[in-house]
Amino acid sequence: MMRIEIICTGDEVLTGKIVNTNFSYISQKLEDVGLSVRWETTVGDDRESLLRALRLAGERADAVIVNGGLGPTVDDLSQEVAAQAARVELVLNDEWLARMEEFFRRRSRVMPPNNRKQAMLPATAEVIDNPIGTACGFALDIGQARFFFTPGVPRELHRMLEAPNNRKQAMLPATAEVIDNPIGTACGFALDIGQARFFFTPGVPRELHRMLEEQIIPRLLAKSGMQTAIVLKRFHSYGLGESHVDALLRGVEELVPDGSVKLGFRAHYPQLETKLTVRGTDTEDTRRKLAPVEREVRKRLGNFILSEDDATLEGVVLAGLASRQGSLSIVETFTSGAIAARLAHLPGADKVFCRAVVARALGEVYAAVGLEGASATGELTRETAEAVARAARRQTHATHALAVLIDLDDGADRIDLGGTICLAIATEHEVASRRSRILGGREWVRLGAVEMGLDCLRRYLQNLPVYERIDFEKA
Amino acid sequence: MMRIEIICTGDEVLTGKIVNTNFSYISQKLEDVGLSVRWETTVGDDRESLLRALRLAGERADAVIVNGGLGPTVDDLSQEVAAQAARVELVLNDEWLARMEEFFRRRSRVMPPNNRKQAMLPATAEVIDNPIGTACGFALDIGQARFFFTPGVPRELHRMLEAPNNRKQAMLPATAEVIDNPIGTACGFALDIGQARFFFTPGVPRELHRMLEEQIIPRLLAKSGMQTAIVLKRFHSYGLGESHVDALLRGVEELVPDGSVKLGFRAHYPQLETKLTVRGTDTEDTRRKLAPVEREVRKRLGNFILSEDDATLEGVVLAGLASRQGSLSIVETFTSGAIAARLAHLPGADKVFCRAVVARALGEVYAAVGLEGASATGELTRETAEAVARAARRQTHATHALAVLIDLDDGADRIDLGGTICLAIATEHEVASRRSRILGGREWVRLGAVEMGLDCLRRYLQNLPVYERIDFEKA
Repeated sequence: MMRIEIICTGDEVLTGKIVNTNFSYISQKLEDVGLSVRWETTVGDDRESLLRALRLAGERADAVIVNGGLGPTVDDLSQEVAAQAARVELVLNDEWLARMEEFFRRRSRVMPPNNRKQAMLPATAEVIDNPIGTACGFALDIGQARFFFTPGVPRELHRMLEAPNNRKQAMLPATAEVIDNPIGTACGFALDIGQARFFFTPGVPRELHRMLEEQIIPRLLAKSGMQTAIVLKRFHSYGLGESHVDALLRGVEELVPDGSVKLGFRAHYPQLETKLTVRGTDTEDTRRKLAPVEREVRKRLGNFILSEDDATLEGVVLAGLASRQGSLSIVETFTSGAIAARLAHLPGADKVFCRAVVARALGEVYAAVGLEGASATGELTRETAEAVARAARRQTHATHALAVLIDLDDGADRIDLGGTICLAIATEHEVASRRSRILGGREWVRLGAVEMGLDCLRRYLQNLPVYERIDFEKA
Repeated sequence: MMRIEIICTGDEVLTGKIVNTNFSYISQKLEDVGLSVRWETTVGDDRESLLRALRLAGERADAVIVNGGLGPTVDDLSQEVAAQAARVELVLNDEWLARMEEFFRRRSRVMPPNNRKQAMLPATAEVIDNPIGTACGFALDIGQARFFFTPGVPRELHRMLEAPNNRKQAMLPATAEVIDNPIGTACGFALDIGQARFFFTPGVPRELHRMLEEQIIPRLLAKSGMQTAIVLKRFHSYGLGESHVDALLRGVEELVPDGSVKLGFRAHYPQLETKLTVRGTDTEDTRRKLAPVEREVRKRLGNFILSEDDATLEGVVLAGLASRQGSLSIVETFTSGAIAARLAHLPGADKVFCRAVVARALGEVYAAVGLEGASATGELTRETAEAVARAARRQTHATHALAVLIDLDDGADRIDLGGTICLAIATEHEVASRRSRILGGREWVRLGAVEMGLDCLRRYLQNLPVYERIDFEKA
């Protein structure tokens, strides 16, 4: 098993000004392809600490991903300290300099002089192809002559030749490796320190994400000698707790006897993500292994699966409505607009989303949907929700209306404070409804009700029963 | 300067299943009292890694806070590995055992046997007073006799005496230190390993938070020999960027010439937090030092300060309405219910919040507020927003109505996609409005508009101009 470590650097992360989501992102991405992080270190923009961290990781790990410290300011020390740790010189990487100048030129700006620092790399850093697949150029002294190796792709060659002042002082041996950053000026790079291979990455999340997926993970997989084809299959569900789903899915991994299917979970209330990681010799092999397991998971979780892979609950609901030229009105109380806020701003929602009304008092709900005559006292029932959903639909001429009404327990917030949720979905010809009680404090009830509302609508649109008992529900 | 390190332990954190907010929380809390973290390490539920991490930190640091690994399962290794690192035995801490049994008894449950593990502590762990300030009990062999030292507070004494089976096998020398956890069963503890003092804390955030603030930070401050009185003053603003506020506040720290006031920022778009940390010999001293700086910050940031310390924008708006027996209706378009969702669920909001209407199409907005005759075509203007706000107020009989209407640029999401925001606030006798344009993509526009809507309402309620140019605005 390859020993992988992560080093995060930067005062903003070390002081807690920024929550370190880059680390969890990297670690999850590696897990998804069957690689595991052993150790993580965070240090600030401090030469001595960073040097120490690099050397320590170099003694323990086979591969290290370093995140941050690649920016243009004097605080950004990664290249410099990496060179020190590897006991080599810093040299200008001309190709990257040209890339940066181009980056600024495209934005009609002149590159500030301090950005030049971002193109200074440790001499032994290995140059890597950029993501469009062409060889990156490097310069090298052989005997007395200075040789310039340039890429075969014309526009990259041109860029190097046109670099202002022809600053071609770079000396990069054939082992230097640049990790391309197609969307920013910080250049990533890879380098050996001690016995470990280090990967240096920028702190800007979207730049990190792209670099990690397109360039670092494939290198790690190659280095680990693992079978290269890996597939991650994800199922999203609402209503079943992690231990319940774990029990329901007992044994699915064994449907593929060679141990190449791994089951995992990620709970983020109210949803649960169920993950299958499948390794194989090639894509065909992974597909073949995944098929029976995938089928079994769908069978066992059944109606509780709300979407798969990158699809979201709100996306499924919108698509379900759009496919039948439908439209939607929403009525909310304690959820306070959070149901509408999940849907109504999405691209394409303007064609489907009709209107939402939010009010805390039932009388106000009635007034808003044109039910002025109704009595706003007494216990909240499914019938109340049904009447409200019907009225909202009639009023707005939407094909579907969802009403989620909540009777919240009195008193201060506490762990056993609950809410009774009555929800209804009305169409022109029918109405479906359910009543549920959730305990767990104000936020738990509110978040649970948002998800329940959307998920019942998803069920309705998929012709599934709107009511099935969920684990969060109390009798 | 005291060298402080943090060690986070747990597979859920190391694999990225959980984002490590505990670390940023601890680090920020320490920063707020003038202490700095030098180094952070994350390891999994792995004996060898944890032992290595403890020993390495013990060589580098003066104090170490260890988070996680104190639970009842076999995965939880902190006590055991800490004992190994300190080369001492694990012994049962009887007082904590009693506390746990009490904890379960109060919930009418019997303590499961594996929870007993949570009361096993390294022999040299020092027992610390619990947060209500009484001495914690400990047992000790002196000569041939077993002595039981018990706390003076009756209910704590009783609890120890009543512990079932009178399991008093603990042997804790006078240096053992328990860090009280008033709300959970995981017991924190402190211990020296190498030259550093280690503080072991549970991974459950709310348990960690309470332990950190009430017990660990005071000990760290005492150990650091720093002047003990420290005050943190926070200002929240909307509309000015970090570098702008930094420039506006240049020199405020120097109003107190001895360097005991430190200025810092935390940007979380769309809001910015400006922090003043003041050190002094005592509370009076810090108050005296803070006063002129605080006054100057208020003067320079002026109308842009939306709240101070723990107060939130939505809380200020709600309080402003409640204090004048006011009520509020909201009309939203692209913000999709997110403005209402900030307010309407808060405790007390049911008295103030009247109704919100969300629609993406202007015609639907008109229909919802009873402006059926109005034309829903043509450019969005301040007058449109004014008419909508007036109509919404009339319709719902609220004292105040806020309308935030947005005309979003066409096309796919991109970094320079913008939105034109027309917002209006209507009362019975007047209407105030503004028009602004924000660029930065769909989410940037949406989040900015939510904050602008709430902040303009705050300004209106505080008799400040609803329009003042903000940094996020484009001409």
